[in-house]
Amino acid sequence: VEFSSSLRFFSAMEQIKQQIARENINFVRFEATDLHGVSRSKTVPVRFFHEKAIYGVPMPRSYLELTLSPKSNEVDHASTASFSSDVLLIPDLSTFRVLPWAEQTARVICDPCTVTGSALRTSPRLIAKQLLGQLQSLGFSLHSSFTYECCVLGAPDRIGPKTLLFPATTLLSNHDLPFLQQLVDSMYCMGADIDSIASASGPGQMEINLRPEYGIAAADSAFTFRTGIKEMARKHSYIASFFTDDGLYNAGVLSHSLWDANGRRSLFQSGEKTADLSEIGRKWLAGLLTHSAALSCLMSPGLGCRSHIAKTIKDPKQVLYATCGCNDNSSSFNIKCHGGREAHIDNKLGSAMANPYIVLAATVAAGLDGIRRNLNIENILNKAPGQQREFAIPVKLDNALEALAEDHVICSALGEPFVQYFIAMKKFEIETQELDDERNKCLEYFI
Amino acid sequence: VEFSSSLRFFSAMEQIKQQIARENINFVRFEATDLHGVSRSKTVPVRFFHEKAIYGVPMPRSYLELTLSPKSNEVDHASTASFSSDVLLIPDLSTFRVLPWAEQTARVICDPCTVTGSALRTSPRLIAKQLLGQLQSLGFSLHSSFTYECCVLGAPDRIGPKTLLFPATTLLSNHDLPFLQQLVDSMYCMGADIDSIASASGPGQMEINLRPEYGIAAADSAFTFRTGIKEMARKHSYIASFFTDDGLYNAGVLSHSLWDANGRRSLFQSGEKTADLSEIGRKWLAGLLTHSAALSCLMSPGLGCRSHIAKTIKDPKQVLYATCGCNDNSSSFNIKCHGGREAHIDNKLGSAMANPYIVLAATVAAGLDGIRRNLNIENILNKAPGQQREFAIPVKLDNALEALAEDHVICSALGEPFVQYFIAMKKFEIETQELDDERNKCLEYFI
Repeated sequence: VEFSSSLRFFSAMEQIKQQIARENINFVRFEATDLHGVSRSKTVPVRFFHEKAIYGVPMPRSYLELTLSPKSNEVDHASTASFSSDVLLIPDLSTFRVLPWAEQTARVICDPCTVTGSALRTSPRLIAKQLLGQLQSLGFSLHSSFTYECCVLGAPDRIGPKTLLFPATTLLSNHDLPFLQQLVDSMYCMGADIDSIASASGPGQMEINLRPEYGIAAADSAFTFRTGIKEMARKHSYIASFFTDDGLYNAGVLSHSLWDANGRRSLFQSGEKTADLSEIGRKWLAGLLTHSAALSCLMSPGLGCRSHIAKTIKDPKQVLYATCGCNDNSSSFNIKCHGGREAHIDNKLGSAMANPYIVLAATVAAGLDGIRRNLNIENILNKAPGQQREFAIPVKLDNALEALAEDHVICSALGEPFVQYFIAMKKFEIETQELDDERNKCLEYFI
Repeated sequence: VEFSSSLRFFSAMEQIKQQIARENINFVRFEATDLHGVSRSKTVPVRFFHEKAIYGVPMPRSYLELTLSPKSNEVDHASTASFSSDVLLIPDLSTFRVLPWAEQTARVICDPCTVTGSALRTSPRLIAKQLLGQLQSLGFSLHSSFTYECCVLGAPDRIGPKTLLFPATTLLSNHDLPFLQQLVDSMYCMGADIDSIASASGPGQMEINLRPEYGIAAADSAFTFRTGIKEMARKHSYIASFFTDDGLYNAGVLSHSLWDANGRRSLFQSGEKTADLSEIGRKWLAGLLTHSAALSCLMSPGLGCRSHIAKTIKDPKQVLYATCGCNDNSSSFNIKCHGGREAHIDNKLGSAMANPYIVLAATVAAGLDGIRRNLNIENILNKAPGQQREFAIPVKLDNALEALAEDHVICSALGEPFVQYFIAMKKFEIETQELDDERNKCLEYFI
């Protein structure tokens, strides 16, 4: 059936209009994610919503992707002109929600497309949906959830290694209740269901994990949560940030498990003895391990999080290996199956800076490759994490970028134009990283 | 009957749900104690309470136990991987209480277990429950209560030995009633029943003693009291602290007595003349004296409280002896039987920094050993405390740790993994104790 079969689009549209009338909403925000998982949006008065929902909202591509140098680039096929054109934000109506923290405003997540209507090959959300499509076609579905560490602080200030002079900011002690209550209630209304809250090791740092969901909904919730917590913190005049540098480190964990097509059995469950993975899980895990170099490039893409990785390796040769373990929090792939949840894998390569759609897409790409090529890692599974030294992870960012470029499975799964753009983008950061110009960007990150 | 027989679990569950509905509670806090008696918790929205109560809440072990060095450690038996895994917080439903000082929040105390459901051998609460189990199996029950000295001050400032320049803080004179009333009422609602309040010798220092209770409830109340008084003080913008260093000293006393299984007669009572102990009490006391070196290591585990001990010994050889006396507040084991309470022993080796579960467990372990091996101390009982010089107590912390390591009765009673972990933990502090890094920890203690 082609793209907008009129009947279902039409009834979804009607429902949304009724909701607009009942909660008298005046503005709808069309938001899309950029490469860094920060949301870019256009606000439209509600009386144009119907028309924008059909034709999309035009937005210059440069809002989603920053500019590069003047070398010629081979992205799409040959005939039209170059790079700085418009893209259309086509909304996905099932993500329409009323923003509980903003007056009379609603939100819809969009997929950027070119003006001819074909999807933009470099948009993270689309890549994730394609890979989930392939999963769907093989009769699988993914049941996953994100866990973030983030800092909620009193007032903005420099975060650096030398002196620490802050008079009025109370550490968001782990009992500042009203803010947390509203955070939990608001997120629940947005579809992002918070499972539990605890305070982590850093000052003002706390760990929030979301409930698992099927398919793309998990990434949407993570995206919603990231945007939401920044704006709500603002209203309580706090600052919420996922930024990591050598001072303190915010981890981002994707814990996922594979189920059958319509979500009845989980395929990681093997027989009656609960501890280890099913035969199909091991292949998925083998895929993850095999591509762990490329994965870690995509999942901790900031210079800050690299220097943190550098500090945690003790031995002199600065080599880090991807490990897997069972119920072991210091290995990069941790198999857990307790606490009333089916067996699942925690992917701990990432930091909170990664874009949740890319994290999801890369994990699926790697896992699928394990299943297609029947990779096996028997010889590894029964060694302790300390002795597993087969899959090296590069520590420097630029080696990580090469590792990504040489990994053809990941490159073809995510699509050629995206990977080249991603690599070009990070090199650009590496070259131009004086101190304060980087702060401007990071102010950019903060907002 | 195995662990969660469904009927009682089920009705307890129903009762709790009605209470949740009546007092419309939105959050339940699952808290467990760490080695230092500070509570670690995860906050869960109430709509997942039912499920979490069955399967427990996962928490990385490192929250309960800080990390050590990279030598290989022989803790559990051989086959699974190493150390940084998850543990499950399994709630004990009888400790479910509504927090009177926090909006719409309730609290449940949990026991940490490994993911296979078996109990964690290094968790203080569990060790205490096992030793009380042994006591139960021998047809005894313990009737005990804690007495704490703590400082409630106006605002935080450096606490050191030289000058004293504090403009705005009123000494919490002994008539600041509203705070004390709320403290007493709130604790009473939490099951921690305060017996009396007096102001002690230091400025802003006060002495609070709790009512005696049977079994583990005494330690739960002490634990509740410690967490509670810090948070309530915070709401009145005071600071409550049990920290001791060379300036002022907060004592922690466990006064306990042995009763028969279902709490009708006390076994310390001997005949009609009231003054001295029954035959079985003297054996219990002998056990305490025999292991007093190990005990004092566990009951005043901070460097601060050691330097206080050093100052109170006058004679040049810096040797301290464990003494026992009758109604004598300067001896380390004080036998009292007045004030309408049966005969009981005050164990005054401890400071307020000790973890109440460990204090309870260690005392029971020592006492039980006295009963099992029929130790006797006739030759000591009738000398004045000044002349009792048989049981030396090491003054420096590291000698105390050796004394603990050589005391095989205590080690086997508390379990090998716990003692080794405890010793390794304290050595780690001794090595790294520059001044201000220690303040970080103490900021840690403060929270």
